[in-house]
Amino acid sequence: MPEASANIGVVGLAVMGSNLARNLASREGNTVAIFNRSYEKTETLVSEHPEAGFVPAQTYQEFADSLQKPRTAIIMVKAGGPTDAVIDSLVEVFEPGDIIVDGGNAYFPDTIRREKAVRETGINFVGAGISGGEEGALTGPSIMPGGSDESWVTLGPILKSIAAIAEGEPCVTHVGHDGAGHFVKMVHNGIEYADMQLIAEAYDLIRRGTGKSPAEIADIFAEWNRGELESYLIEITAEVLRQIDAETGKPLVDVILDQAGAKGTGAWTVQTALSLGVPVSGIAEATFARSLSSHPEQREVATALPGPDEEFVVSDEAAFIEDVRLALYASKIVAYSQGFDEIRAGAAEYGWNIDLGAISKIWRGGCIIRAQFLNRIADAYAAEPGLPVLLTAPYFTEAITRAQAPWRRVVVAAAQAGIPAPAFSSSLSYYDGIRADRLPAALVQGQRDFFGAHTYKRIDKPGTFHTQWSGDRTEIEAEDTH
Amino acid sequence: MPEASANIGVVGLAVMGSNLARNLASREGNTVAIFNRSYEKTETLVSEHPEAGFVPAQTYQEFADSLQKPRTAIIMVKAGGPTDAVIDSLVEVFEPGDIIVDGGNAYFPDTIRREKAVRETGINFVGAGISGGEEGALTGPSIMPGGSDESWVTLGPILKSIAAIAEGEPCVTHVGHDGAGHFVKMVHNGIEYADMQLIAEAYDLIRRGTGKSPAEIADIFAEWNRGELESYLIEITAEVLRQIDAETGKPLVDVILDQAGAKGTGAWTVQTALSLGVPVSGIAEATFARSLSSHPEQREVATALPGPDEEFVVSDEAAFIEDVRLALYASKIVAYSQGFDEIRAGAAEYGWNIDLGAISKIWRGGCIIRAQFLNRIADAYAAEPGLPVLLTAPYFTEAITRAQAPWRRVVVAAAQAGIPAPAFSSSLSYYDGIRADRLPAALVQGQRDFFGAHTYKRIDKPGTFHTQWSGDRTEIEAEDTH
Repeated sequence: MPEASANIGVVGLAVMGSNLARNLASREGNTVAIFNRSYEKTETLVSEHPEAGFVPAQTYQEFADSLQKPRTAIIMVKAGGPTDAVIDSLVEVFEPGDIIVDGGNAYFPDTIRREKAVRETGINFVGAGISGGEEGALTGPSIMPGGSDESWVTLGPILKSIAAIAEGEPCVTHVGHDGAGHFVKMVHNGIEYADMQLIAEAYDLIRRGTGKSPAEIADIFAEWNRGELESYLIEITAEVLRQIDAETGKPLVDVILDQAGAKGTGAWTVQTALSLGVPVSGIAEATFARSLSSHPEQREVATALPGPDEEFVVSDEAAFIEDVRLALYASKIVAYSQGFDEIRAGAAEYGWNIDLGAISKIWRGGCIIRAQFLNRIADAYAAEPGLPVLLTAPYFTEAITRAQAPWRRVVVAAAQAGIPAPAFSSSLSYYDGIRADRLPAALVQGQRDFFGAHTYKRIDKPGTFHTQWSGDRTEIEAEDTH
Repeated sequence: MPEASANIGVVGLAVMGSNLARNLASREGNTVAIFNRSYEKTETLVSEHPEAGFVPAQTYQEFADSLQKPRTAIIMVKAGGPTDAVIDSLVEVFEPGDIIVDGGNAYFPDTIRREKAVRETGINFVGAGISGGEEGALTGPSIMPGGSDESWVTLGPILKSIAAIAEGEPCVTHVGHDGAGHFVKMVHNGIEYADMQLIAEAYDLIRRGTGKSPAEIADIFAEWNRGELESYLIEITAEVLRQIDAETGKPLVDVILDQAGAKGTGAWTVQTALSLGVPVSGIAEATFARSLSSHPEQREVATALPGPDEEFVVSDEAAFIEDVRLALYASKIVAYSQGFDEIRAGAAEYGWNIDLGAISKIWRGGCIIRAQFLNRIADAYAAEPGLPVLLTAPYFTEAITRAQAPWRRVVVAAAQAGIPAPAFSSSLSYYDGIRADRLPAALVQGQRDFFGAHTYKRIDKPGTFHTQWSGDRTEIEAEDTH
């Protein structure tokens, strides 16, 4: 039996797993056991990284024996069946008190189910969202672990040792019990969809409005990245737009097929929000914009549909670009506000005690949506933990007040010019909806009562009412069944 | 043992079930057996409607014995557990070849599951969407049955006898196998959400733009109902807007609390579309508009957020109202086009052979979205059954060409005036997206390749590529894993 020399193990040595293992091994105090279904990959990793001092295992039993108690292992394999298979194998060789961490992109209801099943064996199961891609896994990701308080005692210091650091603080916090970590990671990805779509719309409007080249627009994004929009996504947008395709000499962005892929987390975020009754219209529009782009058979026939008669001409380019910048900022505030709403609603639904300010802090480094801006969100929740809508925090209200007129001008320009700006427009509609004194939802209630006797409430007294539309049209008090 | 005198049975005698049973009994050739968990309701129905000649049953066995073979029973109870319980009871007393119909609002994956389970007993299970509310159940609904071809032989004539009639044709067709009927009913309801939201936005814009009273706007809707917008929802909107609250003397729509309820089918439609990769942004915005309205704790604080400085003044009222009418028509075309896309995608995913033209025809009568307009959809699919996007059919292209400039003016006016018009705006963005020669989705692919090595395709050659962003930035051919 090998000596139990490792304090942490990694199962699954594809790129993400290997990089995470190397990251762990590089930190003071960590000795890392590694296991992969095919031992060849394990051997390769060991030989390519002798500096890491990995403890390789050929079997799950060997892997378990090489770990100090409580044994702690991070699974980095494909979501779904492969994850379940590894969990089953680890449960066989682990003991009560040990900790199994799923670091993959699991759908949070699966994590809730797995945590419940594993808990019965006395072993701790932790679903941990890990953001930052391959690079982040190696150098410091943002980590969103769920699971029990007991597991956090052992796991916390290990995850803190490998997480990104933002303003001196490691980008990891114990999000909440069972599936809370994967839930928050899901919403993170949903916000990422919205952020990327907003940037894409900004680029498209500037390009079609001013005729600037991608390289020139790269300069604009680089400039924006020195201001309040400073963020990883703005930064890499400049890099992508500046890239020239070696083969054609054209801007790479003009050579890439304009059909956006998706791996499902955006859709999950919206599907979950629909179940929770939280309007995340910006994330939904971003997700739909990707699926719209990926139907070439439809787009091909639809190009024949007419656009506006007049050509789109921007008279003052600098002013227009600044308008787009502010529209992007305002829409981004809406997208984050909707995302944090979803986290709050999810926490209430699943009984998680999630600190929204702490979430915004761990997203400041390591992850794809890392941005300066997140400090302002942390401030907002620090000042008012029960804040009902993020965009009503003073800082954001000020920003939107400043951005509002430009935002409206950009949505107007897009509609007039025939340029699709679904996320910009949708965010503005949401903004005008949430701040409305009175919504035509009252008419919708009237219609529902008319055709389905769904009843309605009144503004002037409690109770539930129904108008006898197919009778004498008098109002009766109804049982509240809805 | 009672004589097997009934050719059809109904289980569940709440309002919908009672009305459906009465409808069945009123048609030549039908004798209707009825059963309810508490016999009291059965007795009441029998005594209140002696003309119906109901055959009441006190037990499931008695119910089964009173039915001719193949026994055919329609279940009208709550979706979920109650439906499962009734199915279990019927399976015990029915025989192979008999037919169990679920006429409730089941979620289609449940119907697929139930059909599969019941089929193993040799009994046919049919999930049938029934639209039209209480009134429709009594006088003639639109019916969307799924299930086997075998069951349709017996069930078809019975359902045709009670369905609404539109232009001489009964509003029922065999939609497709297993869950196809409930799937199509779900999308019907999703389109209904979009239609209602568009009407609500039209009303709100006219009211806030012209200061007209609800009664005056009722006249406008009544007028619209004589043109290309003719439909049940436009008709009842006029009725609701004209209604005066007896207690306050105010228009009822001003007394109704502006928080719209929902029973889940809109959310299901959008959730399913997300899984299928079909952009149904109009239905999504309509669903989110309802959830936004139902968060008073957020709306209360958000009313402090600033709107536009300038007041909204419409200079030419008649022209503005006509613009709104055309914007409504164009947006409605988009909503239906998206809904039919979802049906086509669902049919492909689940292997249903759905005739889209037949679906539009059975929606012409009985159901909530019944409209003149559906004839045009039937025409479009008759002319080109494989039509990839409904709005590219000549009739709709002509309509949108005519409506386009007004539609843009209305979206512009809403954005400038600070009036939320999420469904109008979203439909326009979708329209401009689907017809775009080139979308900024290419930039999104570039970003995804940058941070996650998600790869991209090129416009000029086959294959999948990756730029080595963190290396020397050359492009390599990659395995297509996405």
